[in-house]
Amino acid sequence: MFERAAANAVKCGHRPREDTASNPHYSCKFRIYWEDTDAGGVVYYANYLKFMERCRTDWLRALGVDQQRLRLERQLQFAVVAVTVDFLRPAVLNDEIVVTAELECLRGATISFKQTVMRGDVQLIDASTRVACLDSGTLRPCAIPRDLFTEWRNGQ
Amino acid sequence: MFERAAANAVKCGHRPREDTASNPHYSCKFRIYWEDTDAGGVVYYANYLKFMERCRTDWLRALGVDQQRLRLERQLQFAVVAVTVDFLRPAVLNDEIVVTAELECLRGATISFKQTVMRGDVQLIDASTRVACLDSGTLRPCAIPRDLFTEWRNGQ
Amino acid sequence: MFERAAANAVKCGHRPREDTASNPHYSCKFRIYWEDTDAGGVVYYANYLKFMERCRTDWLRALGVDQQRLRLERQLQFAVVAVTVDFLRPAVLNDEIVVTAELECLRGATISFKQTVMRGDVQLIDASTRVACLDSGTLRPCAIPRDLFTEWRNGQ
Amino acid sequence: MFERAAANAVKCGHRPREDTASNPHYSCKFRIYWEDTDAGGVVYYANYLKFMERCRTDWLRALGVDQQRLRLERQLQFAVVAVTVDFLRPAVLNDEIVVTAELECLRGATISFKQTVMRGDVQLIDASTRVACLDSGTLRPCAIPRDLFTEWRNGQ
Repeated sequence: MFERAAANAVKCGHRPREDTASNPHYSCKFRIYWEDTDAGGVVYYANYLKFMERCRTDWLRALGVDQQRLRLERQLQFAVVAVTVDFLRPAVLNDEIVVTAELECLRGATISFKQTVMRGDVQLIDASTRVACLDSGTLRPCAIPRDLFTEWRNGQ
Repeated sequence: MFERAAANAVKCGHRPREDTASNPHYSCKFRIYWEDTDAGGVVYYANYLKFMERCRTDWLRALGVDQQRLRLERQLQFAVVAVTVDFLRPAVLNDEIVVTAELECLRGATISFKQTVMRGDVQLIDASTRVACLDSGTLRPCAIPRDLFTEWRNGQ
Repeated sequence: MFERAAANAVKCGHRPREDTASNPHYSCKFRIYWEDTDAGGVVYYANYLKFMERCRTDWLRALGVDQQRLRLERQLQFAVVAVTVDFLRPAVLNDEIVVTAELECLRGATISFKQTVMRGDVQLIDASTRVACLDSGTLRPCAIPRDLFTEWRNGQ
Repeated sequence: MFERAAANAVKCGHRPREDTASNPHYSCKFRIYWEDTDAGGVVYYANYLKFMERCRTDWLRALGVDQQRLRLERQLQFAVVAVTVDFLRPAVLNDEIVVTAELECLRGATISFKQTVMRGDVQLIDASTRVACLDSGTLRPCAIPRDLFTEWRNGQ
């Protein structure tokens, strides 16, 4: 069943340390441009959420999930419902950053990610993101379809 | 008729100087926040286009044109098709700017604006914008409906 | 002393309910423009952090704190070090939102805010923000100067 | 001499058609993310200017011009002084776009670029950008240093 499959894929909350390797994990690299910075000389704080979203989107795409089609054909869209971000160190112009997303928990209508932003070995951002699957019409939570979940599992 | 009305409202291109006062003209005030600036210490150049769009949107709203309804009920949306911007002087954090939009020309499917950004008496931006009315489905140009035009005229 | 003054102004964490009225609280109104929305038809999630920052900035300005001068004359700048956001409901184009910031805790080098975004009576965002005072040169935390704190207290 | 070198590199304004191949030309590829779109379902018009700037910045970097060092060590920064953009067709979520910048003219304190945004064979944007070299302190135009120009020439 769906719940069981989800439980097998990632154990929510108290996932044992040794399972980490098998966890869906994705990373991508971005450059910092002028548009990302502010007059403080560093990246504007809200823009890290853009980088985090780019990473989740790239991951979905890598897993074969087409968000445009999902919306048009199935009336489904993903929306962030909660985010927690610790801004550890700032990125600056020209930095090359690596953004990661690790699937922490997938159940019912929501997906939880652990996300980081790194510059080389230096961690800049430590974050958690919770994304919900919504009906595009009503904007209400909606169970993530099983076949979509299968694609995710294959993508691990 | 539509064309005549348009010609009366604003004469395209060679509008005589003395007509300026009767021209549809709109201005609004915005504050510069951190999000608008970049590491150069000034407003990031693309963001002036946001301010210019806010002004056009406020104007449409003041004229009773609801862009959401226009799209849902009539399948029409406005899109910028051309823009020319001279960046004369930069705005900085905390500046209070006044953005203006003056209707230069309205014909068929397009509306041309003359726009400025001012800080007090100092002109920061001198711009021209051409906006087209599009069919939301096909994204093709589409004559601006007569009744919409009437609303514009009343708004002068 | 500084710590005592801070403790009097706002009690960190376990502030009694009846103190709320005397708590520094600020709100401001913003309009949702095209720039704020995304192809999902609602406000892009990272942009709520912009609205939250605008509110904090307006508040600082209302309290007489000039961030530009603070940086140039005292080498101090504020930076968000942590943020938690619950996205309860989405805002859409043309919405008028009210953003609030309530001082929860001020001690040493950090200030904690409780922030909300409302559309009429409907709460869209529930957030907490922690801001640190940094040395502009080293980007290291730095005690908030006493006189600045005095300005804050008068601003309540 | 500087002026002559500039004239050789690119002939301003009336550059003969057959010279195009030898002209400094740069292109880079970007993905369209949610952050780039608006509720109209397409890329927000101001964001194309971000893509254009990313391309110019990547090019400078490829030519060995470090904008951060330029600012810190020589008090120089580049700023866009004029832009003309024709929005031919819209990009949408997930599109992969190619942005180009071609050096049209380099003289004294300004550099002119011809820029395009393409999606496959379809041209989305046709633009011209004029960038000035400014003194970071006064924000006044300032001749582009000869050695910087040499780096540009080598980069062709």
